Amino acid sequence: MIFKLKAGLQNNGVTLLNAAEVDSGIESATPPEFGGKEGFWSPETLLTGAAAGCFINTFQFFAKRMKFEFDDITCEAEGVVERVEGKSVFTGITLYPTIMIADESLRPIILDAVEKAHRYCLVSNSLKCPVQIRENVLIASIAE
Amino acid sequence: MIFKLKAGLQNNGVTLLNAAEVDSGIESATPPEFGGKEGFWSPETLLTGAAAGCFINTFQFFAKRMKFEFDDITCEAEGVVERVEGKSVFTGITLYPTIMIADESLRPIILDAVEKAHRYCLVSNSLKCPVQIRENVLIASIAE
Repeated sequence: MIFKLKAGLQNNGVTLLNAAEVDSGIESATPPEFGGKEGFWSPETLLTGAAAGCFINTFQFFAKRMKFEFDDITCEAEGVVERVEGKSVFTGITLYPTIMIADESLRPIILDAVEKAHRYCLVSNSLKCPVQIRENVLIASIAE
Repeated sequence: MIFKLKAGLQNNGVTLLNAAEVDSGIESATPPEFGGKEGFWSPETLLTGAAAGCFINTFQFFAKRMKFEFDDITCEAEGVVERVEGKSVFTGITLYPTIMIADESLRPIILDAVEKAHRYCLVSNSLKCPVQIRENVLIASIAE
């Protein structure tokens, strides 16, 4: 399976990422932390976002396969970059999924699906650094 | 250094990625190859894009530091996903940077900067799989 795209540097010093199958491009730049520009997606934030998006996709996959319903899922994500042996690399990503369910009886199956989504997340499994999950399962009727 | 964002599943089954510092969100979905939706950025394409964008950023960094000028850079990218021991993972990414320069005398320093950008690319160095570079250095006056 091959995933393709094309990146081009624009006159304003911002890179435009384009995938043939997607209408909207993404403007990306070096982050301010590395002397770049504010207000753009950085490769670092895109990689962190790929991990969060992949976790949600994999959780959805297991929800369908394990035949349970959930009301909502959000996922905050933090990617940590540090210098290791003279090179900046990701040393860890933490995902904070919050899953809303209708009632307490669903909690065990949700926790099982979270564990499976963690174990099979394609992006996480492609990274050298550990990806931690700090999940929060809420009952919709109580949270509202 | 911490890179943060928030992902939320929308009613249409598409995930919206939002970073506090960026006005425009990114709609992301499971790719059609994994039974998802067409027309959206997938986590797989985002990760491939992060590698391409990071390469361009790192090349720009070395251009400034090594004090040379280039006319343009584009970078096609291909990420390969395969099943390994029952899990889908990235098994390789190839970047095809094309760099336009004014004249042939710049070629050696460009090739040196490409090699350095490869070696110090933060995203590449955070991945388990190898990232290969197939560069193409063109003289602007001849290419036009």
